Amino acid sequence: MENNTWKGLAEEKRSRLDEAIREEWRIKTQPTGPSVMNYPRDGGILSGDELPITESSAADLVQKMANGELTSVAATLAFCKRAALAQQLLNCNLEFFPDMALARAKELDEYYAKHKKPGLETTMGYVAWIGKYDTEDSVLVMLLYKAGAVFYVKTSVPQSLMVCETLNNIIGRTVNPRNKSWSCGGSSGGEGALVGFRGSLIGVGTDIGGSIRIPSAFNFLFGLRPSHGRLPYAKMANSMEGQETIHSVCGPLCHSMKDMKLFITSVLAEKPWLYDSKVIPMPWRQSEEDAIKLKLSSSGLTLAFYTCDGRVLPHPPVIRAMQTVVNRAKQAGHMVVPWEPYKHPYAVDLANRIYASDGGADIFGTLKQSGEPAVPNFGDLINPSLPKLDLNEVWDANLEKWKYQCEYLSALRTIENELGRDIDAIVAPVTPTAAIRHDQFKYHGYTSAINLLDFTSVVLPVTFADKAIDVKNNAFKPLTNVDSVVQAEYDGEAYHGAPVAVQIIGRRLSEERTMAIAEELARLIGGETAA
Amino acid sequence: MENNTWKGLAEEKRSRLDEAIREEWRIKTQPTGPSVMNYPRDGGILSGDELPITESSAADLVQKMANGELTSVAATLAFCKRAALAQQLLNCNLEFFPDMALARAKELDEYYAKHKKPGLETTMGYVAWIGKYDTEDSVLVMLLYKAGAVFYVKTSVPQSLMVCETLNNIIGRTVNPRNKSWSCGGSSGGEGALVGFRGSLIGVGTDIGGSIRIPSAFNFLFGLRPSHGRLPYAKMANSMEGQETIHSVCGPLCHSMKDMKLFITSVLAEKPWLYDSKVIPMPWRQSEEDAIKLKLSSSGLTLAFYTCDGRVLPHPPVIRAMQTVVNRAKQAGHMVVPWEPYKHPYAVDLANRIYASDGGADIFGTLKQSGEPAVPNFGDLINPSLPKLDLNEVWDANLEKWKYQCEYLSALRTIENELGRDIDAIVAPVTPTAAIRHDQFKYHGYTSAINLLDFTSVVLPVTFADKAIDVKNNAFKPLTNVDSVVQAEYDGEAYHGAPVAVQIIGRRLSEERTMAIAEELARLIGGETAA
Repeated sequence: MENNTWKGLAEEKRSRLDEAIREEWRIKTQPTGPSVMNYPRDGGILSGDELPITESSAADLVQKMANGELTSVAATLAFCKRAALAQQLLNCNLEFFPDMALARAKELDEYYAKHKKPGLETTMGYVAWIGKYDTEDSVLVMLLYKAGAVFYVKTSVPQSLMVCETLNNIIGRTVNPRNKSWSCGGSSGGEGALVGFRGSLIGVGTDIGGSIRIPSAFNFLFGLRPSHGRLPYAKMANSMEGQETIHSVCGPLCHSMKDMKLFITSVLAEKPWLYDSKVIPMPWRQSEEDAIKLKLSSSGLTLAFYTCDGRVLPHPPVIRAMQTVVNRAKQAGHMVVPWEPYKHPYAVDLANRIYASDGGADIFGTLKQSGEPAVPNFGDLINPSLPKLDLNEVWDANLEKWKYQCEYLSALRTIENELGRDIDAIVAPVTPTAAIRHDQFKYHGYTSAINLLDFTSVVLPVTFADKAIDVKNNAFKPLTNVDSVVQAEYDGEAYHGAPVAVQIIGRRLSEERTMAIAEELARLIGGETAA
Repeated sequence: MENNTWKGLAEEKRSRLDEAIREEWRIKTQPTGPSVMNYPRDGGILSGDELPITESSAADLVQKMANGELTSVAATLAFCKRAALAQQLLNCNLEFFPDMALARAKELDEYYAKHKKPGLETTMGYVAWIGKYDTEDSVLVMLLYKAGAVFYVKTSVPQSLMVCETLNNIIGRTVNPRNKSWSCGGSSGGEGALVGFRGSLIGVGTDIGGSIRIPSAFNFLFGLRPSHGRLPYAKMANSMEGQETIHSVCGPLCHSMKDMKLFITSVLAEKPWLYDSKVIPMPWRQSEEDAIKLKLSSSGLTLAFYTCDGRVLPHPPVIRAMQTVVNRAKQAGHMVVPWEPYKHPYAVDLANRIYASDGGADIFGTLKQSGEPAVPNFGDLINPSLPKLDLNEVWDANLEKWKYQCEYLSALRTIENELGRDIDAIVAPVTPTAAIRHDQFKYHGYTSAINLLDFTSVVLPVTFADKAIDVKNNAFKPLTNVDSVVQAEYDGEAYHGAPVAVQIIGRRLSEERTMAIAEELARLIGGETAA
């Protein structure tokens, strides 16, 4: 194989990736069975001390490091080992650099020995990060580093990022740790798989159509798609850079609301708006979180919900997850009212038009540079048959989006006037399916409509598909063609055990309130910490 | 003249406008001399009670209405009369509707008689508004109306808005109340002239390249260009709608910082983010204003300043205005340091490219609809010789802008690190000239560079050109071609008495801090209230 073909380049990359795994971290015999979740405990590679470190929360580890009960090197080593297992079992890493991470951890421990406090300014704990950077770090990486983070891995993403599963021509497919036949989601799917496997406790993804939320849902994780302008995106690599009708945003995937809050408060404490002009100067607003806590101890919350967006009905496990959340919220005394999602199919069509606005010029241009072919499910978010838009057509799309957003606010005011109460959040499915079988992802409308609105969304893992309860509805009449395809995919046996989540949606820039509501709902369904 | 030609349509419009002026408000003999500023006092049309109403501040009028000492009808009548004078003397109104305004004022007085409080929810006072709306009001008008505002006039703008003087084919040219040979500025020039003449106390303009700040400066007014997302723009008409690389923003022109604060706090109290999706949920942050007040009583402010942007040196009156502000600030104990504006000529060129990104397709398309010709100074903000950009080229421009903004933040951090203090604001010229002679406006770079940065800017009126002091510098060597044209325009005699302002520039979304600094500087130069 010649090295200057795309295949040669990919092969070379794979061997460099493989060499980063130390001999003592190598799996001699691949485990049998679909799930690899127990391998870290049973595989004999993590020590008895290391296993509980990786099963902890980031918030607890930070506390232990602050007390001097845990060193950075010990924690880094444990997560490097677990990430090495993840690489071998899930094929989720795109770069792995344990030596650099351990050197950095040593530096932090020396700092602690001298100053008796961890990190350099605040403590972020250990965070894995997917970032594609060239000559300099992204603003987020720089700030997390400043806050005392240790980076040891970059995880896999699908070719172009505009796909909801994780498959590329470099390392192939990343799989779901709970079942190798299921997708880990995408685009931040390597991160979802790694964090789901606890090869990391907090990961960072990007989301322009669902790319944080779908991997969170498929790996039974909490995930945050903040509104644009809340977290720094500067100097990150991306597809279709400069496209600003629907902004890609970055946010965390993690195991608990506590860790999500640790992440976001740590980043905001570094004042990212001093570095990235797109970040709004808005520190963590404790008063906003407190406003929700006050409601919890008085009037209760007012939640709206929808189970179907009018185009694709979710599978039985997702409908059950929605019912679970709605019922628990009602039982706890919250007001929960049905909400007809305002023109979501229109929003999804508009989003699709925007995703494809350059007719794929940017993406196909990049593919052409190496000669590699497009991955099969490339069309998930980009329909390459749509023509490139003219500039004035894009301006029209910008106006259509703004008008739609304002109409949505108007629809919300209408229901609020009827109720005489403000809607605190909307509960909705993340995808129409539980963690999906490979190559079956067909409909991103439940997430992308929220991107068009730029609303804040928190993914709440709820349950697992259960073949005994989640019986296929054979009497179902499809709403649309895509609905009939999605319905046909459901198979109680094949999906048995697949993670199911819902999303808690708040207005634009409502991170504090929406996270507080998600925390309360997590408590009500008994899942403050995901499995 | 046939009615269906553009000339016929414009003539019909002018006669409708003329008919709106009541017989008793008509000027029988036009005053002689260049300035019309004393006409309201001497012309015999405003009564002895009405004159002081129009010479008051909006904040005081609101207070008097709240106490029942003044009715809405009395105040509305006084301002309708003065606006009628302005129309006849300055040619600044594009629509004038006193009957509708007086009916609305009567309604507000009836409300007051019943409830003993003015307005409907909060009191905005009397605000003139330039808004081009079709079937429904803009969000800002709706919210101001809700807050108790009375609308009675829409003022003139230049054809297309993309011009820095006020000239169109409907009513011709609007002139400066201090001297008919001078421009009132543009694009919100009718508003500048009307408010400058006190035909209104607070006006609203829009600013994509200086269109609030230039009329404020030329009419000796305070003006605010807030950052994008602070005030609602939804449902306003505009040129090149959907162009979002440099957002047009709206903001007030007024006679004092007190009235500016009245305006912005009144709008924010109505929670505009519930109506316009682009508005950031950010109420008035008293804590930010207080942070500046605390500095005033302790360490003092840290101000940076530049007198020249590297491309065009301002005229002598502007240089003197800058020196005045810098010296007074230093005398008061503030730290004032020179700042080399970071790559402003690059920023101005990029802004020009963005303004012209559709190759004038939107604007020339609109002109074609009626057949009217372009006004002569159309090229001030749009260079029609630039080609229409391809979509991917616009994405590149978006990235260039973001990169430049981040570099600017980096340059600010560098000087802050050197000083060991944070820069609270930057003081700079608004234009290279005092209120300019007609058709002489050549360079918008002092304002448009700030639009590209999306920084907050407050215009502070400082002084008037003085032929005895502001002597032409004949030894001057031009920096650039445009500089030599601008320098050649200066004539001490012709500019004698022309208003001169500076702008106080703060980081993005720093309205509270930047306004507090402008208030302090206004106090130091003895101009808390503009003339």
